[in-house]
Amino acid sequence: MASNGVKMQEKTARENRKELFLRACRSEPVERVPVWIMRQAGRYLPEYRAVREKHAFLKVCKTPELAAEVSLQPYRAIAVDAVIVFSDILIPAEAMGMALELTDAGPVLANPVRERVQVDALRNFDPEQETGFVAEAIRQLCRALGPEVPVIGFAAAPWTLACYMVEGRAREGFPTVKKMMYQEPRLFRMLLETIARNTAAYLQAQTAAGAAAVQLFDTWAGELSQRDYDEFALPTTRLLLAELNAGPVPVILYTKGSAHLLGSVAQAGANVLSVDWRVDLGELRHQLGNGVALQGNVDPGVLLGPEAGVCAAAREAIEKTAGLGHILNLGHGILPATPVENARAFVRAGQTTPLPARVPLGRVS
Amino acid sequence: MASNGVKMQEKTARENRKELFLRACRSEPVERVPVWIMRQAGRYLPEYRAVREKHAFLKVCKTPELAAEVSLQPYRAIAVDAVIVFSDILIPAEAMGMALELTDAGPVLANPVRERVQVDALRNFDPEQETGFVAEAIRQLCRALGPEVPVIGFAAAPWTLACYMVEGRAREGFPTVKKMMYQEPRLFRMLLETIARNTAAYLQAQTAAGAAAVQLFDTWAGELSQRDYDEFALPTTRLLLAELNAGPVPVILYTKGSAHLLGSVAQAGANVLSVDWRVDLGELRHQLGNGVALQGNVDPGVLLGPEAGVCAAAREAIEKTAGLGHILNLGHGILPATPVENARAFVRAGQTTPLPARVPLGRVS
Repeated sequence: MASNGVKMQEKTARENRKELFLRACRSEPVERVPVWIMRQAGRYLPEYRAVREKHAFLKVCKTPELAAEVSLQPYRAIAVDAVIVFSDILIPAEAMGMALELTDAGPVLANPVRERVQVDALRNFDPEQETGFVAEAIRQLCRALGPEVPVIGFAAAPWTLACYMVEGRAREGFPTVKKMMYQEPRLFRMLLETIARNTAAYLQAQTAAGAAAVQLFDTWAGELSQRDYDEFALPTTRLLLAELNAGPVPVILYTKGSAHLLGSVAQAGANVLSVDWRVDLGELRHQLGNGVALQGNVDPGVLLGPEAGVCAAAREAIEKTAGLGHILNLGHGILPATPVENARAFVRAGQTTPLPARVPLGRVS
Repeated sequence: MASNGVKMQEKTARENRKELFLRACRSEPVERVPVWIMRQAGRYLPEYRAVREKHAFLKVCKTPELAAEVSLQPYRAIAVDAVIVFSDILIPAEAMGMALELTDAGPVLANPVRERVQVDALRNFDPEQETGFVAEAIRQLCRALGPEVPVIGFAAAPWTLACYMVEGRAREGFPTVKKMMYQEPRLFRMLLETIARNTAAYLQAQTAAGAAAVQLFDTWAGELSQRDYDEFALPTTRLLLAELNAGPVPVILYTKGSAHLLGSVAQAGANVLSVDWRVDLGELRHQLGNGVALQGNVDPGVLLGPEAGVCAAAREAIEKTAGLGHILNLGHGILPATPVENARAFVRAGQTTPLPARVPLGRVS
């Protein structure tokens, strides 16, 4: 096993990982699945904790050199196939005029949007002007990594950013945002559309800076019933993607706890759906067909268990898709208590799982 | 509409609500669906807040007169069809020997179970001795309500109580309990079985005291993949129900965020599955057949919106089941910000929604 792993690592080092990643996003045949991990630049890494001991979370987000440095850490430490820029999903809310503050529980929006006057006061921001540090971090990453490693940009999807902008922070049941949604559906839709347009521009700046793909985090989609997802979240996610007009840049749409919604989520127009461990990848592929690639879906909790279980979970996920149109990842962010060696084992298991041989295109007998 | 409502209320007052409730649990024909609300004795009620200003949460749980008083408040205020005893799902953990403490974030278990020696130290408790206040509150409720109103007892399901016993409190991703589950599956199963046996005895004491039905809260079932639910949660929930041997007393099994698991949840052997708004009741009935009754499933957030939406949601839920084998409820606990008039409107809308006429049994042509 060890020698196999070493061989694959050598081979991996010679590969064009960006090409591999983009082929997987487009559901084209690949030699192996690409692997990265949500929140891969995070507290489970000692070198990340070392940076964070010296610099506050938002300071790291807003200093391109620091953001690029922590983004690169997991590439060096666990050999992931893609590097996501280190940032926070609340950055665009601040750029729209909201007060972003750091608390012990993480970043919060101190003056949440509750009234029409506050929605009206949100400003359309110029991403290069207001959030230039994100684009600059991406440019630095692209320079450091060269043309053969994909850099991923990201933002929150409209519904999820609205959850934070109305609630101020994640809160059980999201009562304030639900109240606005049901009491003032037009105002709420206006808020979602404002977010969608600004987020499209924000992501355009990231692709212009060199992001090879972008991921939309709709972390709280699973709080919605099918009807409310279809009425509020889906049309404004579609609006965002239409305005983004990403062309050849693949869009990955992540939703959590959304097994009940995935038929609708697939209608948003993203190239890749990123799903959690509450979904069977084989059944989802059967349901959605080969037109959309899948990302995920190992329970981050599995990486707290023994290494054999980590490797088995990675292989099993790949077996569910036969490696076609599949980017291996976790179903949610890696947990801070994860041993680094288990994160490394997960990545390596994904990179070394052999795929079933396929009949090459054009040679079907 | 108003006069219809009044007529139905008068009629309701003459009904035997316990018989109605039990018929619904057994999927037998009913004239209307019964309605109650999870966390109906809660902070949205001013009279509840008044009691809580004078008495701490655990004091109310452990003083039968206070527990009975707050349990009765929603019966008087919003005319629900069933009264659930006021208590906390962590009470049995304390009776098993754990330190239960009240914090600003609610009750927590101060010395969580992490090692084998702690699992071994858990004691099998005598419910009448250690948690007699619960049975006594139920006896007082039965006396106050008479024989025609159902009193519901409850406990956490083994997986959900284990989440709190290992983690100490609800925590994103439940890393500590997942770690134990994957690292020490035998020890974890031993813990689940200890909880199952103690909970069975605890619920037996509640039915002996007069509870007409019992609800098992498996609030965190949705954190599990299908495989882990089947391997850990399902067999120990079945063990609990086998030991409980509830006979004619219906068992309601509540799970949250569990759309991916309900085929398995239905195998646990409960009479009623209580589900959230992430499930289509019509599709679930189609999937599971008429053998199991359904409880739910309106989004608690809907009760923060306009009254018309509240009534429409109640009616729509009932239309999905045609009122057969259906107990109307929310998909999770009522939110503290809910206006009391909306809670009342929800209950009344459920009680006054006409059911489609059925061909009486034995007269099928």
